[in-house]
Amino acid sequence: MEMEFVTGLACVFCGGVYPARYSTCPRCGIQGILDVQYDYAAVRRRLTRRTLARRRDLSQWRYRELLPIRAASAVPDLAVGWTPLTAAPTLARHIGIGSLWLKDDGRNASGSLKDRASAIGVVKAREARRRIIACASTGNAASSCAGMAASMGLRSVIFVPERAPEPKITQLLVFGATVLRVRGSYEDAFQLCQRACAKWGWYNRNSGINPYLVEGKKTVGLEIGEQLGWKPPDWVAVSVGDGCTIAGVWKAFREMKQLGLIARTSRLLGVQAEGAAPVTACWQTGEPLRPLEPHTVADSIAVGVPRNWKKAVIAIQESGGSMLNVSDCEILDAMRDTGRLAGVFAEPAAATAVAGLRRAVTEGTVGRRATAVALVTGNGLKDIQSAKSAVGDPFDIPPDGAGLDEILCQSALC
Amino acid sequence: MEMEFVTGLACVFCGGVYPARYSTCPRCGIQGILDVQYDYAAVRRRLTRRTLARRRDLSQWRYRELLPIRAASAVPDLAVGWTPLTAAPTLARHIGIGSLWLKDDGRNASGSLKDRASAIGVVKAREARRRIIACASTGNAASSCAGMAASMGLRSVIFVPERAPEPKITQLLVFGATVLRVRGSYEDAFQLCQRACAKWGWYNRNSGINPYLVEGKKTVGLEIGEQLGWKPPDWVAVSVGDGCTIAGVWKAFREMKQLGLIARTSRLLGVQAEGAAPVTACWQTGEPLRPLEPHTVADSIAVGVPRNWKKAVIAIQESGGSMLNVSDCEILDAMRDTGRLAGVFAEPAAATAVAGLRRAVTEGTVGRRATAVALVTGNGLKDIQSAKSAVGDPFDIPPDGAGLDEILCQSALC
Repeated sequence: MEMEFVTGLACVFCGGVYPARYSTCPRCGIQGILDVQYDYAAVRRRLTRRTLARRRDLSQWRYRELLPIRAASAVPDLAVGWTPLTAAPTLARHIGIGSLWLKDDGRNASGSLKDRASAIGVVKAREARRRIIACASTGNAASSCAGMAASMGLRSVIFVPERAPEPKITQLLVFGATVLRVRGSYEDAFQLCQRACAKWGWYNRNSGINPYLVEGKKTVGLEIGEQLGWKPPDWVAVSVGDGCTIAGVWKAFREMKQLGLIARTSRLLGVQAEGAAPVTACWQTGEPLRPLEPHTVADSIAVGVPRNWKKAVIAIQESGGSMLNVSDCEILDAMRDTGRLAGVFAEPAAATAVAGLRRAVTEGTVGRRATAVALVTGNGLKDIQSAKSAVGDPFDIPPDGAGLDEILCQSALC
Repeated sequence: MEMEFVTGLACVFCGGVYPARYSTCPRCGIQGILDVQYDYAAVRRRLTRRTLARRRDLSQWRYRELLPIRAASAVPDLAVGWTPLTAAPTLARHIGIGSLWLKDDGRNASGSLKDRASAIGVVKAREARRRIIACASTGNAASSCAGMAASMGLRSVIFVPERAPEPKITQLLVFGATVLRVRGSYEDAFQLCQRACAKWGWYNRNSGINPYLVEGKKTVGLEIGEQLGWKPPDWVAVSVGDGCTIAGVWKAFREMKQLGLIARTSRLLGVQAEGAAPVTACWQTGEPLRPLEPHTVADSIAVGVPRNWKKAVIAIQESGGSMLNVSDCEILDAMRDTGRLAGVFAEPAAATAVAGLRRAVTEGTVGRRATAVALVTGNGLKDIQSAKSAVGDPFDIPPDGAGLDEILCQSALC
């Protein structure tokens, strides 16, 4: 049985449309990222404001007609998506804009937005009758892949580079993944994973060569639309690493418009870390990607060779949006602000979106009466080390409380 | 304006009922834990299966009539409650029971069930026109207090003992808390906090002397009822530290029965860690509490002097349930099983409920066809160190992949 509403896969480079059985463009090769196409006229008859309001499935699967999975396919038991859209009035005042909401994807099962993509991955693996799914990563992609595989009764094999932090390896092992630590770089781990998938016939979750995963990420945009009563904000701020999250968000807005769910789309604010900003360079110069060695505290967006840079640039352009970079210092500031003013603990890459919004207001790109959503792509609990560098130390006092009054007065608490 | 449905506070020890302005029983003193009483006849007219099905508020505030807050009081912007109830069929088979769901409270804003209580705390603090809320703890109570305070625009002051782990202090600082590290024990920190609250007029979140907080915890039980279509499972497994979570769960079941929402209540399985099991001792012997020095990997339930032991014992008895202890080894096993078979990363105290369920099946207390819910009270990301001791090490391989085939065959992956 086929995917009911999928009509084909279009190459982002050559524009050719191919049947839904390729991973990358058969003409352009590995460069040719494919984009899933749907029969929107048919989807439109099924997916309306009214039918959605009646759906009780509060997960990304409520948008099933816009996802590249078969109608009868089983989905993981783990809840994925429909994360809170939290109003953050104090943070909005601090940044200097009219209204701000945080879309808190750190509430997903493994603590990041990547669960949306991995959930599609495990469904596709099952459809392809594979029992093992593999990926190369130390980060959110890996843990979400392992967690979703566990929920779906699949085995997972994760290749990690030597420098992978132990807490992240621990999370993978808890999810029952077979973790292979490669004494080498990320590239070594990636190549080994590709070869092993080819040799053993495992399902390959590496998103660069899998056109379906990004469709899962798209659902975060659909949810923003629906949770705001189909009145999108002026801006949606998204941190950019590989580029496929912001491309997914834009696809969601295009689709909502095409389906008549929203009247106007939001502008996208793409934000990169200064030390890992190859996509911003493309956006500014209009030239093709120049790979670089990334250096930033925001490890989840420390991508030197983003595979989806073109999709990202097109998304920002089409939305009438903008793109800018922020320093690590601004990222850590934003992490603290998001915690103390909204009660949301964001990982550095997630705080990057908030930092970018703040800078865009200062620079005048985003107006002072604007409404905005910032995408919180990952939970701060996943990277306590970075948070530590942002917040400093507690006060030390003796058990008799000597000196307490002075500390309280200093802190404006007395 | 008063709390619409609250009729008074009943002392768990002497049974006396007092107006809703005390913290502990005016006759019994600090021992006299108070329990909030409601006008259930009036609540029954408002809270029915039908009215609840129509409510769009997917948070603990959907049960507002059963919470001790004023009708007009503002609640935090942070979403609290209505966490996923995740089916775990593979884990159920592994344990040997008919059906198992995990109530994943690790998805709350600060990563634990304590958010439910702290959310009530900050609402009450605002009702009392306090601008500062304080608590003594290193754990989930502290981080939830700081996070909810941030969301509500309140300041928070947290007293932590010297041995508090740095990651937990970091989380507090991110939420903007003023953190006072006391060079002494938890008891020292607690006493300093009590004195400071009295001196400076701060709102006191220490749950032992605050009858309102546990009402927030109760909502997890109400959600289990509603999410299962008002058909409660045979058993609900809850780890026990202080005792107030399991008491809250039982109160939810009593109330749902009294309101006609459910026909029968679940049995409660109370589970303690072997090295911190004073409540199990009370349950087994019928004698009053004997304080002890707790030793267990499950730090969130490492309580030697539980203040709510009596409420917990009564809850388990009234439910027709049972109580047992599990070893740290069983807890770590359960943590691994919950991760690899259900994709849920539980902190040790949360995995304790799953470990207890497994043991109860082995011992014959819980039948092999039984249906059960295990309460996942906290997110495993909050305590990576314990997880590390549960899972061992990854496989090391060279960049050329030599030895990979052997590893895969060992792992039954080839």
